[in-house]
Amino acid sequence: MGTTGAITDASLRAFVGYDMKRAFNALQADLSRTLTPFGLRMMTFSALSLVVENPGLRPSQLATVLTIERANLVVIVDELEQRGLLTRTPSTTDRRAHALHVTDQGQSLFAKANRAVAEHDARMIAGVAQHLQPQLKDALRQIENSAKQDVV
Amino acid sequence: MGTTGAITDASLRAFVGYDMKRAFNALQADLSRTLTPFGLRMMTFSALSLVVENPGLRPSQLATVLTIERANLVVIVDELEQRGLLTRTPSTTDRRAHALHVTDQGQSLFAKANRAVAEHDARMIAGVAQHLQPQLKDALRQIENSAKQDVV
Repeated sequence: MGTTGAITDASLRAFVGYDMKRAFNALQADLSRTLTPFGLRMMTFSALSLVVENPGLRPSQLATVLTIERANLVVIVDELEQRGLLTRTPSTTDRRAHALHVTDQGQSLFAKANRAVAEHDARMIAGVAQHLQPQLKDALRQIENSAKQDVV
Repeated sequence: MGTTGAITDASLRAFVGYDMKRAFNALQADLSRTLTPFGLRMMTFSALSLVVENPGLRPSQLATVLTIERANLVVIVDELEQRGLLTRTPSTTDRRAHALHVTDQGQSLFAKANRAVAEHDARMIAGVAQHLQPQLKDALRQIENSAKQDVV
């Protein structure tokens, strides 16, 4: 790359959306490195976490919480099932539906991965003053809700 | 979707990374709707903004600032050039390199799109208390830097 003086992005930096994109990209790369030793990706980790927390969850519900297309969800569930981390069995309340449960192996891998993700997350936020950390999380949820309301 | 009680994501919500992903996804969908009338996407808008701010920018520099692969950058520049929004000419300082400049049409479209994006951005952050808005931006930059330092 040649140098023709410093490149500036002041116009884009005026937007919180640009700051968020850059922060999220950097964080996502770090999370990806954190999950690699467990053979997990952001989406397979999130799916595992939700099934641990909500035993018997249906694939359609998982897709809704993760806000992903049903087709993409199938790929994620197949992967976790083939690795023996979760099971898909007919639902006891609706025989047309499936219920997802983690296996002992899934529970054990999740516990380890979750600790590593907690350490990664603490590292990401470490530079933010402690008293501002809850406010940052509140602000992000507020933005999520503002953007969603906007669709209506 | 069947109901088997409320689905919770408390375990993931403990992480600032999850809050950020959800906020960014929602914001990105709103930004996409904002840019559609101008025939722009997040990446083509960002590229246009950077060329307006840094006339003569080289494609390799643009790829670096946008943190995208050179191959993806080519697609973006091709699209903007074909629409007559920017030009790619041999650099005056290095004949092997190219310099990017916006056309009058590009400048005019950018001005309109930038106003729309500013309105979208203000809408996204409107629910965050005014005195916390600069702190939110600082926190996001701090996270971006923490994640980058982590690579070393």
